[in-house]
Amino acid sequence: MKSAIKVIAFDADDTLWDNQPQFNEVIAEFIKLLRPYCSEKVAGETIHRVQVENLPIYGFGAKSLVLSMTQAACRLSNHQIDAISIEKIIQLGKKLLTMPVKLLDSAESVVRQLGERYILVLITKGDLVDQKRKLHASGLLKYFHHIEILSDKKLEDYQDLFARLDLKPEEFVMVGNSLKSDIIPVLELNAHAVYIPYPDTWEHEQVENYEPGHKNFTQIEKLSDLIKILT
Amino acid sequence: MKSAIKVIAFDADDTLWDNQPQFNEVIAEFIKLLRPYCSEKVAGETIHRVQVENLPIYGFGAKSLVLSMTQAACRLSNHQIDAISIEKIIQLGKKLLTMPVKLLDSAESVVRQLGERYILVLITKGDLVDQKRKLHASGLLKYFHHIEILSDKKLEDYQDLFARLDLKPEEFVMVGNSLKSDIIPVLELNAHAVYIPYPDTWEHEQVENYEPGHKNFTQIEKLSDLIKILT
Repeated sequence: MKSAIKVIAFDADDTLWDNQPQFNEVIAEFIKLLRPYCSEKVAGETIHRVQVENLPIYGFGAKSLVLSMTQAACRLSNHQIDAISIEKIIQLGKKLLTMPVKLLDSAESVVRQLGERYILVLITKGDLVDQKRKLHASGLLKYFHHIEILSDKKLEDYQDLFARLDLKPEEFVMVGNSLKSDIIPVLELNAHAVYIPYPDTWEHEQVENYEPGHKNFTQIEKLSDLIKILT
Repeated sequence: MKSAIKVIAFDADDTLWDNQPQFNEVIAEFIKLLRPYCSEKVAGETIHRVQVENLPIYGFGAKSLVLSMTQAACRLSNHQIDAISIEKIIQLGKKLLTMPVKLLDSAESVVRQLGERYILVLITKGDLVDQKRKLHASGLLKYFHHIEILSDKKLEDYQDLFARLDLKPEEFVMVGNSLKSDIIPVLELNAHAVYIPYPDTWEHEQVENYEPGHKNFTQIEKLSDLIKILT
């Protein structure tokens, strides 16, 4: 594959740095806060459902989660929840938005080496201010040509991207941890995709019984394995 | 200027489409909601202060405004505000995030014509999912090479941008309605800046007694005047 590739696009959360474990921690604290009003099971299911319902309006990311938690708290408490608890939810969000960035598996050295040969793009559907903060804090910003915002990482989003960047699909490889967002639509367009599974991938991103048969599909264990494939 | 220019960067909100009037409407409704607890003056000042305080964490945009309104409502009511009102604040945000896009002064035709000669980039520090939605809804998306996220549109942000895109300052022109964000830092780097004043520019973006003396500064009345300067 490497001879034709011009652009390597990276998913950010849970590909370059940890994200879902920190979200899960905050959701666990939210569920505790709702204990006076409902079971943990109901709180957990509701916050997940409200998040998914709000995706078309809010998109992904920490601010969206906080807004959905606030909405779910009003509903789940039958509007009995007090302003002290609402303020705690706002605080949980601020905690999430200021957490230190934990890079995965030598991300800096991988990105630096690949940046010498390819144009690197960060592709995200998360909270952009937050992604930019993480990119900056991690020291990775300088290796990326720009950040691409794909509202939903669907087939048409990648198609638009190729058109705008004047790229042929075979010149593009996407690296990520979500089969649904990073891998399947990219392979359908005959571009390349490298899948790095992450143990904690968000439920909404999971695909059951996926059987990769595409010649442009590669699965690796860790980010640093990219070097073997792409240099 | 036009001979050297390669990239035209556009600010989005209040340059390509209306934004601040819609924000002001939502803030006015928030202030009404707080009437049982404080004067309109105090509510207005507080939401402005909380928004500015939260900028480093939340960034700009509609979701950030809703989170700041929720926080301000808790404080201003001395934690007496009820969940019904909190839910109304969440609803105000959803209204803002689904409002139709009102393009300013023949933006589509301006962008189409300029896109034939230059690389167009959208530069924003707002809510990216929302900006992308507006760009898509307005039909302008296809004319832009990509969207740049500058967390704060300061001098260093533009410097990073030039480095990443491998651009000389004289090859770049920024078009926008904020002297503070779109014009002053760009001129300091000896790039070009075109200022299109907008009557409702957010207080936080205003600069008093600015006297432009830079040779790369141009002020125009409306977006369509760009065609005269750049084609």
